[in-house]
Amino acid sequence: MRKTPVWKSIAVNLTSDIAEGRYKTGDRLPTEAQLAAKHGVNRHTVRRALSDLADQGLVHARRGAGVFVAARPTDYAIGKRVRYHKSISASGKIPGKKILTLTTRAADEKEAEALEIVSGDQVHVYDGLSLVDGQPIGLFQSVFPADRLPGILEALSETESVTKALQHCGVKDYTRISTRLNARAATATQALHLRLTEGAPVLYSVGINVDPNGLPVEFGRTLFAGDRVTLTLNED
Amino acid sequence: MRKTPVWKSIAVNLTSDIAEGRYKTGDRLPTEAQLAAKHGVNRHTVRRALSDLADQGLVHARRGAGVFVAARPTDYAIGKRVRYHKSISASGKIPGKKILTLTTRAADEKEAEALEIVSGDQVHVYDGLSLVDGQPIGLFQSVFPADRLPGILEALSETESVTKALQHCGVKDYTRISTRLNARAATATQALHLRLTEGAPVLYSVGINVDPNGLPVEFGRTLFAGDRVTLTLNED
Repeated sequence: MRKTPVWKSIAVNLTSDIAEGRYKTGDRLPTEAQLAAKHGVNRHTVRRALSDLADQGLVHARRGAGVFVAARPTDYAIGKRVRYHKSISASGKIPGKKILTLTTRAADEKEAEALEIVSGDQVHVYDGLSLVDGQPIGLFQSVFPADRLPGILEALSETESVTKALQHCGVKDYTRISTRLNARAATATQALHLRLTEGAPVLYSVGINVDPNGLPVEFGRTLFAGDRVTLTLNED
Repeated sequence: MRKTPVWKSIAVNLTSDIAEGRYKTGDRLPTEAQLAAKHGVNRHTVRRALSDLADQGLVHARRGAGVFVAARPTDYAIGKRVRYHKSISASGKIPGKKILTLTTRAADEKEAEALEIVSGDQVHVYDGLSLVDGQPIGLFQSVFPADRLPGILEALSETESVTKALQHCGVKDYTRISTRLNARAATATQALHLRLTEGAPVLYSVGINVDPNGLPVEFGRTLFAGDRVTLTLNED
């Protein structure tokens, strides 16, 4: 077996320090000079270790300010049954939603196609924030067919929960039939809502939920703060 | 926060329109005059926005004919059966892989846990690039348990394909039991491999594949160029 390189040992040590809470989210790590002195190596070796941690998403460097411990992301399970409150609660965290706007307007082509309605048909639209322990992790827009779910805005304004509002409208169960995901850079407005800097990486998710008869009930688009959420997908 | 210039807002709007399919590949965008009227700006501002989209490779101008939507991100199906070549071919594009390195070393804790082996056990490691029509879309590292798959590096060096190499080693079928996804900013090294700028958004995927007996055969980590791939997940 090959000997573990020194930079790797330092990286492993720092990883343990972070995992065990010796350095917490947002903490600044010791400087390169301090780490080099502590481990009896040169700064080049320390830099290699820190670059490894950055590659793993454990820390991020801010130019001129130092290297900081990244937030530990919350797991959010996606798959056939996507349930925000249940999934976040299972992570031992407190889920929440914040309504930004509730509106009714004509569906555009993309929305009409997803919901199997006609472009120009009315849709109810829920713009909001998904929260974990009070911090925004997602900026979402959920679009509902108005004809099928006439009372959903009132229900949402009372419960904030899509699952509960759908139940209130007679949709006792729903499943996800399609999810599309990519990564993009947050625009200024998106960053403001998610408390990120403009250009920060976000995970963009587009999903369609259907009722037990296979009829679409929700077309949802969410931007997740890249360093606060890990989408998880487990097959049975 | 910095104020977003008007041309940038227009560019972002058009980008969303393209990403959401309101304008499809090969469609001609509205003329400069139409866009200027729609946004209440002069044509110079519109031109700046279109030039930005062209820089991103989202549109291309044909002299005298207009500005057209360029090819869209490649769909890559994830779920229970993740097959790179099959999935990319189904998008009508040419899949490819490029080997960066093939090595054998001791497993770290994370790899050992994923592969259900002991930390320090030997693993074979395939670092490479996933290509679509010759362009890199993903930078990956696949880790295989050496004990279970002694001949895999030789097989990989011949085929480049994980599916074929696993078959060569007697693993006739494999399924994905877990996938974890988040968005992050590309480091300098990652950006170089993926031909992105440092800090560009990338989608990070971590997956475990098992053989028909449920024994892990591959622990794979991939960074996807955010604007070149859409991961898709369809439930039956």
